Amino acid sequence: MATQTIDDLPTPALILDRAILRRNLKRMSERLSKAGVMLRPHLKTAKSVQIGRMAVEGHDGRITVSTLAEARYFAEGGFTDILYGVSVVPSKLAAVTEIRRKGVNLRVVTDNLDVARAIAAAAKDGDTFSVLIEIDSGAGRAGLPWPALPGLLDIARVLHQAPGVDLAGLMTHAGQSYHQNTPDGIAAVAEQERLAITGAAEKLRAAGIPCPIVSAGSTPTAMHSKNFSGITEMRPGVYVFNDLDQELIGSCGAGDLALSVLASVIGHYPHRNQMLIDAGALALSKDISAQEFQPKVGYGTIVDAPAKDMAVVACSQEHGFVGSDDPIPYGTMPVGTRVRVLPNHACITASAYDRYYVVDSDLDGGKSVVDVYDRINGW
Amino acid sequence: MATQTIDDLPTPALILDRAILRRNLKRMSERLSKAGVMLRPHLKTAKSVQIGRMAVEGHDGRITVSTLAEARYFAEGGFTDILYGVSVVPSKLAAVTEIRRKGVNLRVVTDNLDVARAIAAAAKDGDTFSVLIEIDSGAGRAGLPWPALPGLLDIARVLHQAPGVDLAGLMTHAGQSYHQNTPDGIAAVAEQERLAITGAAEKLRAAGIPCPIVSAGSTPTAMHSKNFSGITEMRPGVYVFNDLDQELIGSCGAGDLALSVLASVIGHYPHRNQMLIDAGALALSKDISAQEFQPKVGYGTIVDAPAKDMAVVACSQEHGFVGSDDPIPYGTMPVGTRVRVLPNHACITASAYDRYYVVDSDLDGGKSVVDVYDRINGW
Repeated sequence: MATQTIDDLPTPALILDRAILRRNLKRMSERLSKAGVMLRPHLKTAKSVQIGRMAVEGHDGRITVSTLAEARYFAEGGFTDILYGVSVVPSKLAAVTEIRRKGVNLRVVTDNLDVARAIAAAAKDGDTFSVLIEIDSGAGRAGLPWPALPGLLDIARVLHQAPGVDLAGLMTHAGQSYHQNTPDGIAAVAEQERLAITGAAEKLRAAGIPCPIVSAGSTPTAMHSKNFSGITEMRPGVYVFNDLDQELIGSCGAGDLALSVLASVIGHYPHRNQMLIDAGALALSKDISAQEFQPKVGYGTIVDAPAKDMAVVACSQEHGFVGSDDPIPYGTMPVGTRVRVLPNHACITASAYDRYYVVDSDLDGGKSVVDVYDRINGW
Repeated sequence: MATQTIDDLPTPALILDRAILRRNLKRMSERLSKAGVMLRPHLKTAKSVQIGRMAVEGHDGRITVSTLAEARYFAEGGFTDILYGVSVVPSKLAAVTEIRRKGVNLRVVTDNLDVARAIAAAAKDGDTFSVLIEIDSGAGRAGLPWPALPGLLDIARVLHQAPGVDLAGLMTHAGQSYHQNTPDGIAAVAEQERLAITGAAEKLRAAGIPCPIVSAGSTPTAMHSKNFSGITEMRPGVYVFNDLDQELIGSCGAGDLALSVLASVIGHYPHRNQMLIDAGALALSKDISAQEFQPKVGYGTIVDAPAKDMAVVACSQEHGFVGSDDPIPYGTMPVGTRVRVLPNHACITASAYDRYYVVDSDLDGGKSVVDVYDRINGW
């Protein structure tokens, strides 16, 4: 069979540039190795065993996931130290135990005293748990809000004293870093993240409770932090692919976006200077996070566009509306022409697909499909 | 095995109330039967053979789909008259032919002369096509814009004269009806939709070209149209489930929402009067269409909420932030409590799931899982 190229693929399809992926992985891996911090990549973005294996190369293999479906999938893929990074609830402990019984150290997270007690009660008959307590370092999402850290010692004591429970440490995620768009602004958030999590760790240790893991990180703070002192591991996720949002906030450069959606032009509408493509709300997602810093990116920008600021300006379920500040050159983009769209938010866009068609821009400009990686979706 | 209830399900999960589904299907079925119009439900919303079969009960079985994956799935499910309602491109004709060779009349849509010629050229050796030309009745999406209808007769003649090609008729979708929120406003859009598609049909017939199918419809226009004269079939889709957007524009009542997302409370944040649930951007989607008429719906409202205007006010990938205008009664909603979230836009929310857990509020208030319906996603 002749080599398959992206021109042979059905559209819409999810395209991953392996050359860019490798550079992104190498950059973060080297940065954290040099800083003396362990890398626990958050695989909620990639959701792919093949990419996960590449991400932990040269590291000890610890990873983060966001769903039990990911936990099962990566456990089957041979990963043995997995942090399930979304607050666990008692009804999910049986599923956690099922995975742990296979010899996988699936660790869970909580910020709640009742849940800590439920974990303590569920640890019996040889079924153990490893738990991290979540700290809110300013994102205003999950975690005990720093600096008050209400209830931290109560939760920690329940877990620390429970037979069969390993209080492995603390974790935080400075999601507020996504709303900074200068290296200094992000570095300031990174320092806030560090002060919060190391301050909480000191509070535990002062109470005689060990805190071996001090886990922080987002892609922006991992890229721009000036001081990792006291942090033992970082959990960046979207850096594997990057996207328009990461580019606009300055986590990466314009050439570092590894993921795109391949689409076909399906209609010409010169009376309103628009085209339609077959990538709409499902193929791109309705995430518009990158519009915070550049409204013109719409639902995604067109790669190598022949006209200025060509982007998907609106979406219905299977239709993407492409507009431009220039007149669209319809003659050079007949119906059937293939375009690639850079997503606002790679984690959300990728979730519509069950596979990556892998190309390599270092080999032939990214024309041939050199591999197919699978993905796990759902819960 | 004991009956499974929604308390036994993993969260997040997609819950479908069969009693409401049946009422929604019956209402539309009876309305169009009474109006003497064929029903060709758009199954891009349900994407489920079980629901498709219920939707066409008492009708001739014609349906609409939005992807080739749906076309294959419904063809395998026994449906034999399928309109693929998104503009086809030449590279997809081979896949269309493959399905048609199995005895399924998979019809395609175009608004482009080059595509019409490609269809004519591809019809050979016994491989036929059935084509509808799309008209833009004011939505500003796909279709030849009415009233100018540029190129309509050129496209129609290519298709009409091509051996092996059946020019089956015309179709339109008045998507602008989603931005009206009164019965009269929607009825006015419905009349515009009717005038456009019947006017285009008259133009064909005046040129000696038959136009047997005159296909229109959206859920709002199907519900509020006062005159179907000249229209042969309607293609509503979201009416099967309805959602907050349809409720707010008046396509349905508050008791007509059949779909919800089951989620668990995973954290309490009294310092900011919020809770977190395990349904975030992937489980709910980032569609905020219903906010056009009621910003307080956020990313979805909580069913039977114990506090005022309780809704998902923000989302990250796996976290939904629940807020309320009242103080949240944390004592009655401990971590682990299950809540149901009504989606903004059922078609987009459902796309994250591979199955519906079916309950029936007429049987036991919707507690027991009475069935599981599958779904086809992707392309």
